[in-house]
Amino acid sequence: MSVVVRNIRRVDAELVEKYEGIGVATIHEAQGRKGLLASHMRPVYRPCHTAGPAVTCEMAPGDNWMLHVAVEQCREGDVLVAAPTSPCEDGYFGELIATQLKARGVAGLVLEAGCRDVAEITKMGFPVWSRAIFAQGTVKETPGNVNLPLVCAGQLINPGDLIVADDDGVVVVRRKQAEDVLNASREREDKEARSRIRYARGELSLDVSNMRARLLEKGLKYIDTPPED
Amino acid sequence: MSVVVRNIRRVDAELVEKYEGIGVATIHEAQGRKGLLASHMRPVYRPCHTAGPAVTCEMAPGDNWMLHVAVEQCREGDVLVAAPTSPCEDGYFGELIATQLKARGVAGLVLEAGCRDVAEITKMGFPVWSRAIFAQGTVKETPGNVNLPLVCAGQLINPGDLIVADDDGVVVVRRKQAEDVLNASREREDKEARSRIRYARGELSLDVSNMRARLLEKGLKYIDTPPED
Amino acid sequence: MSVVVRNIRRVDAELVEKYEGIGVATIHEAQGRKGLLASHMRPVYRPCHTAGPAVTCEMAPGDNWMLHVAVEQCREGDVLVAAPTSPCEDGYFGELIATQLKARGVAGLVLEAGCRDVAEITKMGFPVWSRAIFAQGTVKETPGNVNLPLVCAGQLINPGDLIVADDDGVVVVRRKQAEDVLNASREREDKEARSRIRYARGELSLDVSNMRARLLEKGLKYIDTPPED
Amino acid sequence: MSVVVRNIRRVDAELVEKYEGIGVATIHEAQGRKGLLASHMRPVYRPCHTAGPAVTCEMAPGDNWMLHVAVEQCREGDVLVAAPTSPCEDGYFGELIATQLKARGVAGLVLEAGCRDVAEITKMGFPVWSRAIFAQGTVKETPGNVNLPLVCAGQLINPGDLIVADDDGVVVVRRKQAEDVLNASREREDKEARSRIRYARGELSLDVSNMRARLLEKGLKYIDTPPED
Amino acid sequence: MSVVVRNIRRVDAELVEKYEGIGVATIHEAQGRKGLLASHMRPVYRPCHTAGPAVTCEMAPGDNWMLHVAVEQCREGDVLVAAPTSPCEDGYFGELIATQLKARGVAGLVLEAGCRDVAEITKMGFPVWSRAIFAQGTVKETPGNVNLPLVCAGQLINPGDLIVADDDGVVVVRRKQAEDVLNASREREDKEARSRIRYARGELSLDVSNMRARLLEKGLKYIDTPPED
Amino acid sequence: MSVVVRNIRRVDAELVEKYEGIGVATIHEAQGRKGLLASHMRPVYRPCHTAGPAVTCEMAPGDNWMLHVAVEQCREGDVLVAAPTSPCEDGYFGELIATQLKARGVAGLVLEAGCRDVAEITKMGFPVWSRAIFAQGTVKETPGNVNLPLVCAGQLINPGDLIVADDDGVVVVRRKQAEDVLNASREREDKEARSRIRYARGELSLDVSNMRARLLEKGLKYIDTPPED
Repeated sequence: MSVVVRNIRRVDAELVEKYEGIGVATIHEAQGRKGLLASHMRPVYRPCHTAGPAVTCEMAPGDNWMLHVAVEQCREGDVLVAAPTSPCEDGYFGELIATQLKARGVAGLVLEAGCRDVAEITKMGFPVWSRAIFAQGTVKETPGNVNLPLVCAGQLINPGDLIVADDDGVVVVRRKQAEDVLNASREREDKEARSRIRYARGELSLDVSNMRARLLEKGLKYIDTPPED
Repeated sequence: MSVVVRNIRRVDAELVEKYEGIGVATIHEAQGRKGLLASHMRPVYRPCHTAGPAVTCEMAPGDNWMLHVAVEQCREGDVLVAAPTSPCEDGYFGELIATQLKARGVAGLVLEAGCRDVAEITKMGFPVWSRAIFAQGTVKETPGNVNLPLVCAGQLINPGDLIVADDDGVVVVRRKQAEDVLNASREREDKEARSRIRYARGELSLDVSNMRARLLEKGLKYIDTPPED
Repeated sequence: MSVVVRNIRRVDAELVEKYEGIGVATIHEAQGRKGLLASHMRPVYRPCHTAGPAVTCEMAPGDNWMLHVAVEQCREGDVLVAAPTSPCEDGYFGELIATQLKARGVAGLVLEAGCRDVAEITKMGFPVWSRAIFAQGTVKETPGNVNLPLVCAGQLINPGDLIVADDDGVVVVRRKQAEDVLNASREREDKEARSRIRYARGELSLDVSNMRARLLEKGLKYIDTPPED
Repeated sequence: MSVVVRNIRRVDAELVEKYEGIGVATIHEAQGRKGLLASHMRPVYRPCHTAGPAVTCEMAPGDNWMLHVAVEQCREGDVLVAAPTSPCEDGYFGELIATQLKARGVAGLVLEAGCRDVAEITKMGFPVWSRAIFAQGTVKETPGNVNLPLVCAGQLINPGDLIVADDDGVVVVRRKQAEDVLNASREREDKEARSRIRYARGELSLDVSNMRARLLEKGLKYIDTPPED
Repeated sequence: MSVVVRNIRRVDAELVEKYEGIGVATIHEAQGRKGLLASHMRPVYRPCHTAGPAVTCEMAPGDNWMLHVAVEQCREGDVLVAAPTSPCEDGYFGELIATQLKARGVAGLVLEAGCRDVAEITKMGFPVWSRAIFAQGTVKETPGNVNLPLVCAGQLINPGDLIVADDDGVVVVRRKQAEDVLNASREREDKEARSRIRYARGELSLDVSNMRARLLEKGLKYIDTPPED
Repeated sequence: MSVVVRNIRRVDAELVEKYEGIGVATIHEAQGRKGLLASHMRPVYRPCHTAGPAVTCEMAPGDNWMLHVAVEQCREGDVLVAAPTSPCEDGYFGELIATQLKARGVAGLVLEAGCRDVAEITKMGFPVWSRAIFAQGTVKETPGNVNLPLVCAGQLINPGDLIVADDDGVVVVRRKQAEDVLNASREREDKEARSRIRYARGELSLDVSNMRARLLEKGLKYIDTPPED
């Protein structure tokens, strides 16, 4: 059975707005080093940044039919997250679906497959993260699911979870944790801003973060001539 | 035995000109989803687009000698397609051969190996698609073949076939089919242009392409609460 | 035992300056086709070029502690070369360490792991070559070594060796050979400059480098009709 | 925070027993082509077959500490499923942990990392599926989680879910669906047994499964001379 | 359009029989180092050896329908060669199709995709070379082609060409060249048998093949102390 | 310049004998988790175990000439370690060189390239570790070096260093450290033997190695109901 779940609970839109400008690396650290999608998910163009609630789309390998179905379930500000049921880098997505998504105000696409028409997509400024750039066409024969929980690039994505993506990659934040993670991210950013000023002046993280004593304790030795191999 | 075939029949030059601006994804679809080279063939810089008849070059692994031989067989507008006889990502191609090809008016290079001097090649605007960027030098010891049929990145390339390449990758069109594929591509582009206008206004491919009935028939269901896992 | 070697002998700074503008491919050829790091070491942004003596840093997998230790050992003009003791593409390096390195006048980073904050690093113009872009955080639990000989991306790097890196990749030159390699590189560049002029006028490397006779000797044949397959 | 959940609900042991001899491919089909772990999960030796409830273990990269913690949570018949929080193929598992697991009657290990001591593990007949064989040692510095839901090789694994693994790979069956999937698997096996007899006598699936009409309808043509390329 | 070409010209059966016991490496060398399929094509079990005329099968990604169609076109002694139109490692082939092929006396399968039921296939002794072992199921929606020329694992395969496969991999021999290649292979085997006897007695290929003079000429030097690095 | 260094200092033969039966994982741990070659170096057949001093061989890509030269430099008990100067998986090594090496009593081959004739090599029981099995032939055109230091699969190998290889992979031990590492390996084996007995009786490494207190200190918590996601 294939299903489309229409009414999902999305992470709050005002909360999403506040993620503007907060990077994937910061969020990933702030929530305890989790939620990061695999490093093969690369942006089609750089620089890029987006954030929004996930609409999920599970597709058959070599078959992009459900992407068309998923478009209708996307609202302004959503991030569409799509993955095939077995590994495939065919070109599921191109300029024509991008046009539909852009017309709906969709904030971006995260695609565990191939993207094509990348020149046009770059020109229209619709941000896409994908595992490949590949023009290979797909068929429309086998339905899948929209808005069921989905594993994409090694992470579980629930519909309505917050997706943030930038030049570094893609991270997922659980819907209910989005406020806590925002606060932790801001704290981290503030702390990093303070450190950055000190580092720019020539101070070292060895001192700013008090690492020296613990390094000695763990056996680090400073010497002036290299040991024999 | 190593051979260089001098007189090949090329796809007609006037025909090639008409491919200006037609993308790889469109051509691949228009000819029935075939002819696409593997996704590891990436442009050295973007954006890029080229089209022209193939001059083929088969080389020994780690040996770029035949590339020098092939240059002489290239005419204005040709696309040189080169592959080693076993997998190798050494830097077969750099600025000096690029200068020779450019002086002859060659339209581009498709290389199942490594490219080097990419900063210079980018600056001179000579389009290259390759499987790697790698400075590793090669030798000149073992001859190969020029203008025999060649498998490159998973596709059979006949000398004189039409090669089209852009930001999405590389596609081959059989010489005798180039006119039919041009017509089919244009039809596809016209149709896509009409769809694009409707999509930009907010219409959905679900409706524009009449997918709803067939989706229901295949068992797709719309629900408002997710099923239990 | 973990050690930091403080006093290393660096390749001479005046010599390093003379490498300005000499490319990786040229150096690799000039020193006899050796010293090239593996092709997976890619620049985070292009174009880019750097040269300087190596400070080496060996780190535990998923643990960037020693990178902080290594910063202090870097002087103006150095290139930090860092690798984990087992394959890992976690994000060892980001904007904050980049700020520290930049404040010290460090010339670049070569990292056999992942880099994050690539938008910021691109903006600040600090050149990085890495095997991945990945935001995955690391821990600070296990010390390693600074300024011991290190294998990075398939090449042995001694502290103080010369590292040159550009859009094509990264090459290492032994400290004691840096002067000879500089001279050989310049000779090569001069020779290539002369060839380039001839190639730009339409001459062929077949003639400029006298390849025709040896090709015939090796059995190359020119024919006008293709042989039967 | 790191947690070990002690009391998990396991798929019923009597049900598990009935999976004896049912293959991964059959189960995957019987539950609607889902639940299959990625193809890089290979058995350390063949032939092999196991089934049992999952105990899950999330570990830091290059750190096998939690595997030691997880052993205690395993009961007779369990299958331990372990994955690092970022990609890593270090040798998390060897003979000594295998001895502990075997002493507790554990049914097997599914490991999204490296396995070592494979000669000894093969000799002792403890079945392991892993992404690599690699002797690289790990540290014991960073805790993780036991018996939280886990993504392993592209699939979500809940503690207590049924894991079945054989020469073909690894599949997960949701705890509550294990009975239905068992029945569907048996039906499938019965049907396949009947087909197998007919196929062994020379009948064709084209006829046994009535494919001919639908193939014609989809445009398949039988010809006696090949079309021109 | 999808076609099945029924009447293909096969390499002569008596000729095929004479290939019994001749290895892939020998044949590949004997025909001038060509025709070898990529190294990712691995036998499902070892040892194994087969030879026979190719029946080719082009399939949609994730869709094994045409494999069922191809079975009917296979005669006793044929080797079925099947590849998807875009890269895919789904489990196209399992025990049930193996049973059909075995009933027809088919000599083996070469599959640019995944194989499943490998325990059963190993037991029944039906030789398969594939790019993956993966249980992932496929659909039956999109027809393809049988007995058209096909690129499989980097080589062009014409229907009726000779396929030889063993523990080392798979090689294709053009139908019309099969007699010449047989003779060249036997000569090579005879020569190797003579060399083997000399090598087993302690002689060196340096002497048996007269390499010393040419090595000196190319600059090889024997020294007793290593040069400084 | 290409050189063959004839007189190398080998790790002591009596010492090598004592490594009989000591595994790669043990040695790697005993010398501080270093010296392990990359996990892509796999044995051609299993089970297997060898140990001996390294004779090193640096070869051109796609060119196995130096392997023939290296044979002569191998004595009884040596392990030949060979790598190309740029990545290549061609079949550098087959039955005929194996016969020569076996006639000289050589203990095994470690090859950063492809191996062929694996059926014959398995039958003759000559142990080989390689990165690929591939029949692709090579040329004999470009000399290289024998018995210079070499990077193979990510590790520096000095001529005369001790190589140990088994089912898990390959490790290098510096010549001068071979005695210390032997002692440390034996200690480790003794300790493991004692642990193994306790583990086989049902004891846990958590207790045997006193991990519980430190785990609590690092924040590990045992709970009976899973936290909300």
